[in-house]
Amino acid sequence: MKNIRLIIAYDGTDFHGVQECLEAAIQKLVVEPVELWGSGRTDAGAHASRQVANFKTASPIPCANLLKALNDLLPPTVRVRDAREVPDGFHARYDARSKTYRYRVLEAPVCPPFIWRFVCHHPYPLDHARMAEAARLVEGEHDFTSFAASPAHVGEGDAEARNDDARSTVRTIFSSRLLWRPRTSLLIYEVRGSGFLHHMVRNIVGTLLEVGRGKLAPEDVLRIVEARDRTKAGPTAPARGLCLVKVEY
Amino acid sequence: MKNIRLIIAYDGTDFHGVQECLEAAIQKLVVEPVELWGSGRTDAGAHASRQVANFKTASPIPCANLLKALNDLLPPTVRVRDAREVPDGFHARYDARSKTYRYRVLEAPVCPPFIWRFVCHHPYPLDHARMAEAARLVEGEHDFTSFAASPAHVGEGDAEARNDDARSTVRTIFSSRLLWRPRTSLLIYEVRGSGFLHHMVRNIVGTLLEVGRGKLAPEDVLRIVEARDRTKAGPTAPARGLCLVKVEY
Repeated sequence: MKNIRLIIAYDGTDFHGVQECLEAAIQKLVVEPVELWGSGRTDAGAHASRQVANFKTASPIPCANLLKALNDLLPPTVRVRDAREVPDGFHARYDARSKTYRYRVLEAPVCPPFIWRFVCHHPYPLDHARMAEAARLVEGEHDFTSFAASPAHVGEGDAEARNDDARSTVRTIFSSRLLWRPRTSLLIYEVRGSGFLHHMVRNIVGTLLEVGRGKLAPEDVLRIVEARDRTKAGPTAPARGLCLVKVEY
Repeated sequence: MKNIRLIIAYDGTDFHGVQECLEAAIQKLVVEPVELWGSGRTDAGAHASRQVANFKTASPIPCANLLKALNDLLPPTVRVRDAREVPDGFHARYDARSKTYRYRVLEAPVCPPFIWRFVCHHPYPLDHARMAEAARLVEGEHDFTSFAASPAHVGEGDAEARNDDARSTVRTIFSSRLLWRPRTSLLIYEVRGSGFLHHMVRNIVGTLLEVGRGKLAPEDVLRIVEARDRTKAGPTAPARGLCLVKVEY
């Protein structure tokens, strides 16, 4: 049996079954049942530029051929960027040490039709300095209950809360920062952490937007974390702005 | 009566009636019949980042409000970027002095799911130097019959060949050049001319790709122009790589 690791990119806009679609394409090629392990599921409507997954197979198909054949079978909104054999023990989900997400906010009066699928459009100015200050305050090890999906949403099916550490709501954020790209009017929130609760990044962004609008002070973010109460944080930002950009092992 | 000029961007992928959709939205707001004049129609499946159009109306709605209200009514794949009052004599179609198109070829093994709608994917290396040399050869005033849509396609409905100068196949290309962007692996063909025959840019690109693959020599392009015979040129490149980026008056 070979252990194959895939790096996958997808546009999640109209697509709610990336994993199922990939499994079906792989099975068609290797002609045997296959279990595909992703590093974790992303929210419906969210994207990935470098999702990692692995599966085991007895198929003799070389990885380069597998990559081309998979991309021929998959829709253009799902692409395999890399396929290679890895040591037998590698597991895309259990071995993940950190994940990095980017959330893109377009701060411009009109959202170009070429990027609307991949940004949250905010037509009014935001206070970037205050948002950046607030973003740094979630760094470190915290109980992120306040930024977890409300209990009604936990069963939605794409919850990272179902991982082994499902019962714990403690996560470590290694870095949490805001980047402003004046040329494209994109405000990018980039967060790297040991793992994330369901909706956690989108709830942090929703709260940062409240800070940017002046409805919350930066230091309110600390108070919200300490409250361990979902109702204290801002609303969930739209999925379309969210993209998984890196998984480290 | 006011004469309103619009600057419009659209993703033409799934959308075959941008003009009709815009007219309907405008009529809903100004509550009177409106005739919208575009600078010319783009091919089905092609895009525009700065299409120009105008219409006359007796409506007192200020342009800034019109812009916001139109964007609220339109799908996210069609955006009005600017709306302003212009002198009564301005006509988006008859007054156009030049148009600039860009055609994007992605020269990479895998096409990212975030840009597939806007590029022609070419997974194998092309000879950029030869393509650039060939591109320059179409500059100047020529009879572009060889690069016009074959007669069977003229009736497709989005023909610039229906303009006033429909009977002439002579056009002037002011500049025709190739840009290579190594960071994104995008090969961009940019062409600015007095006007273009139906499918003309896509047929030039199809021919340049044949040069890039070594199937034609750069100087063959001159021979093809002189032949005034559509069957001599390369195939029509896919619409998705094409974007109208500028109209000058």
